[in-house]
Amino acid sequence: MDHQEVRSAHAKSAAGNSPAAHGRGGGRPPVVGMVGAGQLARMAAAAAIGLDVRFRVLAADPDESAAQVCADTVLGDYRCTDDLLAFAAGCDVVTFDHEHVPQQQLVALEQAGFVVRPSAAALRMTQDKLAMRARLRELGVPVPRVELVSSLADVQDIADRTDWPVVLKAVSGGYDGRGVWVCRSYAEVADVLSHGVPLFAEEFVPFERELAVLIARSPSGHGAAYPVVQTVQRDGICHEVVAPAPGLTDHLAADIVQLGLKLARDLDVVGLLAVELFETRGGLLVNELAMRPHNSGHWTIEGARTSQFEQHLRAVLNWPLGAPTATAPCAVMANILGDDDADLHGKLNHVMAADPALKVQLYGKPVRPGRKVGHVTALGHDPATVGDRARRAARYMATGNEEP
Amino acid sequence: MDHQEVRSAHAKSAAGNSPAAHGRGGGRPPVVGMVGAGQLARMAAAAAIGLDVRFRVLAADPDESAAQVCADTVLGDYRCTDDLLAFAAGCDVVTFDHEHVPQQQLVALEQAGFVVRPSAAALRMTQDKLAMRARLRELGVPVPRVELVSSLADVQDIADRTDWPVVLKAVSGGYDGRGVWVCRSYAEVADVLSHGVPLFAEEFVPFERELAVLIARSPSGHGAAYPVVQTVQRDGICHEVVAPAPGLTDHLAADIVQLGLKLARDLDVVGLLAVELFETRGGLLVNELAMRPHNSGHWTIEGARTSQFEQHLRAVLNWPLGAPTATAPCAVMANILGDDDADLHGKLNHVMAADPALKVQLYGKPVRPGRKVGHVTALGHDPATVGDRARRAARYMATGNEEP
Repeated sequence: MDHQEVRSAHAKSAAGNSPAAHGRGGGRPPVVGMVGAGQLARMAAAAAIGLDVRFRVLAADPDESAAQVCADTVLGDYRCTDDLLAFAAGCDVVTFDHEHVPQQQLVALEQAGFVVRPSAAALRMTQDKLAMRARLRELGVPVPRVELVSSLADVQDIADRTDWPVVLKAVSGGYDGRGVWVCRSYAEVADVLSHGVPLFAEEFVPFERELAVLIARSPSGHGAAYPVVQTVQRDGICHEVVAPAPGLTDHLAADIVQLGLKLARDLDVVGLLAVELFETRGGLLVNELAMRPHNSGHWTIEGARTSQFEQHLRAVLNWPLGAPTATAPCAVMANILGDDDADLHGKLNHVMAADPALKVQLYGKPVRPGRKVGHVTALGHDPATVGDRARRAARYMATGNEEP
Repeated sequence: MDHQEVRSAHAKSAAGNSPAAHGRGGGRPPVVGMVGAGQLARMAAAAAIGLDVRFRVLAADPDESAAQVCADTVLGDYRCTDDLLAFAAGCDVVTFDHEHVPQQQLVALEQAGFVVRPSAAALRMTQDKLAMRARLRELGVPVPRVELVSSLADVQDIADRTDWPVVLKAVSGGYDGRGVWVCRSYAEVADVLSHGVPLFAEEFVPFERELAVLIARSPSGHGAAYPVVQTVQRDGICHEVVAPAPGLTDHLAADIVQLGLKLARDLDVVGLLAVELFETRGGLLVNELAMRPHNSGHWTIEGARTSQFEQHLRAVLNWPLGAPTATAPCAVMANILGDDDADLHGKLNHVMAADPALKVQLYGKPVRPGRKVGHVTALGHDPATVGDRARRAARYMATGNEEP
């Protein structure tokens, strides 16, 4: 394909084509290939520039978020082994902006001698949520109770025992970009079941709030933890992240960081591990894991000395990790979720005028209702004030209106 | 040219081809074209990503610093009107990473209806240093005394009157990337004269130190000033920048900011204006002007809420300017100047391990002695400690040795 050939010219000429044949001697910049070209790859591309890491993305379409900004975009299908092998040729490391590459393809990459970080075995824990929960239980980590469901009758049985809502999750992936549904009626359940994806029901956890911790880990075993954050989710979509989580005791923060570091080690994660937790009256439960840059870490672009995107690159390259320390007493990140008004740039001008210290990241994605099309980050001293700035700006960017 | 066609595909399809025909309505991301593909364009490309500004560079070679990382690289010659017009087609704004585009070509761009920021008239003040000094004198701004020289006899005459060193400057441009020579002998003068570029001699100013102020200005006249910095130069090459300038009185800092804002207005600058000054016992003298992102502003990437690269994009797009406030009490930027050892990435690992909070920017340029190939920025409270961290790291990146 011409497009692929031309846009890959640099990396190919610099790196040759044989798998994993390249040390990092001789001053040649390393080549990191990221499978997937969404906003995570886009922000990683920005971080790669300063480190002189040659950054290549595998995109399905030249208009995808990261493909728009990456000088070395390869077009291909992440489900196709041949496309993946061609993409990986000349990469020092292959990593991911999503967890959808099937195990068979991941193993094929590894068997061909490519350096895949995180590994296929580690990624399995983000791909099969039942396997993940079983593994965490083995490790003595508290997780919500789950059971497989395949019919309305199964769900009826659960609702009879536990009452509504019933939380349904896709074992792997999902549809329409979602994998979690908090259902409050049989009609909602029937709609989810109608898509035919394997599902399990998870106990509805009446949590006090949701927390997350982001860990970076190198192949050498070196780990670094970002401050624990509070996340605000609605219908399974992250709306807001407050860093650090307000009112968290030092003791609990330390426990969560230790849990994150332990999980990164026990699951042999290389790169980033995001651990999402429920804080309940009875203690902590681990809800979700991700092994990639994560929405709960977007605040680190301005709010931490080393952004999660730089950190991920350093980790998968086995470079020394950067300081994860905060650069301000408080940072609040609010997602811009698509609404009816598609003109983000027109609204951006007003947001910039209203709050010159606000940081905006736009993802270059067409606006669709509910879709994450960008985020804003405010920094300062007081969580209430900072949160208000971020929320108002994100709301305005989405709707053209500051009020909820 | 195939390369150009393919790499420009996005912007062309999105923006069409007629000059300056595009408003910013309808939610289309704006296209900014930067003429030149050095490290300033490279760092601007990184800043454009978050704003969803489609960023295009005009490069002489696909291996140039910014061309390596920019998804929309057009190959061409900045001295060729046809190349410039082809490059500008589809750009909402054309701007520059250097001041070498000849006046004739700048005027041709403007006459073809393209939006050129800063304008040809403003840029002239950075291209003809004698005209600049005459204009500043008209404006009542103190500048060093100058006189044209064309022969060794002219310089002999000056040396007899003022003693050595004699400072020679190219009226426009220079050679080998330099335009300033502090000569301490006739042999050195003869060598400079032998290159045949028009020169003038400038009085050698026995300054206490060098300062700089960076101003952003919009077409609407809105201005923003970064904190005044101290720069440390050797042989006309910037080695180090300390922000804010230590020990500067509030009064003098305010005077310098006012001078910068006045110059930006009087010279009708759009984008960034860097004003380099000598602080002497007798007061301030303006030494140099630049109308683009500037080495004295690299510290703003991490050290200011809005980096100079984001600010330049906002200014030339006539967007509201960002907050230029510092994010830390002190930032020190030290340039990595090429030495014998070409393996920057090997040394980068040691620097990252030694100082996990240090920020490194590499420019992707082949190492040549004395060439700026990257920079490091340290942030903290105490200028002495912060400066030491930055200097040691920059020295190590250059030489593989921490000691001077």
